[in-house]
Order: sequence, then C-alpha cells, then structure tokens
Amino acid sequence: MFVVHVHVHVKAECVEAFKLATQANARASLLEAGVARFDVIQQLDDPTRFLLVEAYRFADAPAAHKETSHYLAWRDAVASMMAEPRSSVKYVNVHPVDAEW
Amino acid sequence: MFVVHVHVHVKAECVEAFKLATQANARASLLEAGVARFDVIQQLDDPTRFLLVEAYRFADAPAAHKETSHYLAWRDAVASMMAEPRSSVKYVNVHPVDAEW
Repeated sequence: MFVVHVHVHVKAECVEAFKLATQANARASLLEAGVARFDVIQQLDDPTRFLLVEAYRFADAPAAHKETSHYLAWRDAVASMMAEPRSSVKYVNVHPVDAEW
Repeated sequence: MFVVHVHVHVKAECVEAFKLATQANARASLLEAGVARFDVIQQLDDPTRFLLVEAYRFADAPAAHKETSHYLAWRDAVASMMAEPRSSVKYVNVHPVDAEW
C-alpha cells in the first residue's frame, strides 16, 4: 500500500469552498481502481489546515490519479485558495495488511 | 469522527521491535467499540518515523483507549524506543461521512 499525506493550508475565506471542491474530488477518486481510501480531514485547532489521506493499491496509481479529469479540475479549482504551497509525505503500511485497506 | 495522528520517531535500532509492539496494539485497539480505524504507517524516506492514525467514533473513545491493558502494555514496551517525545495532531472528518469509516 502506498499512502500519501497531502498537507494543505488554505486562506481563511476559502475554507468552505475548499471543503466542497475536495469532497467532490474525494468521491470521484474513490472510484479509481487504484484508490483504496481518499480521506479528507480538517485540523481541530486550525480549521484552515487540511490533510488529504490517499491510500493507493499500486505503485503507478498516484500518477494515474493525477491524470484524471477530477484531479485536474480540483487542482485548478483550489489553486487560488492556497495560503502556501502544498507538501506531501509518503508512507508504507505496517498495519493493517494490504488486503484490509 | 475524531481522528488523532500520533507522530513517532524511534531509535534506528528499535524499528523492528517498534513495528511488532505497535501491530499488536493496533490489532487489540480495533476491537474497542469506539475505534473505527487504527492504522500504522512508516515514512518512506525515513523508516525511523511512524504515524499512528487513530479514528474514534465517540468523543470519549480516545480516553477509553488510554485505559486499556493493550495501550498501557504498548506504552511501556515502546518507552525506551523513542528517539524523541511523541506528538499528536487532532482532526475532524470532512470526507467520508461518519457512517463510512
């Protein structure tokens, strides 16, 4: 399992618009064959900070995701909402095993 | 949904022991009524860094988790493995909705 955490910091006035755009992207992303999970969570002590938790089943699934129309639409929709550039951290699963994601 | 990310940095010589102890804790934690998920992931570019992704169904579930025998056993087992103190970040879910965790 290839797990990517995308850290997002949005402008305060863009919080609700970002949530709507990102929910749409998450719903569409979950229909991709290589996507096991696509969670969107909001930091409790700073609601302008979000984390996208993307769990991919195959090594080439992250690249395939970035070619989808829903990813490209999301990327363009949120471009002006960023308070700073996004950053990401990559992980592998220790628990649970692949079949349980 | 109450999502807690626990950031863990272990000593290099403790990586495998930490994985074993934390897998056991994750398996037992998933049997708690208030625990929806208990993922353990390892950072790709630094295998001494782990993240525990704990998703709780109720506000009081994190406190209940910290009273379980498996949490207390884990806490004691890994105490000497830490390279620095653990830190945590709390989130709420934006997607998916509670029923889908």
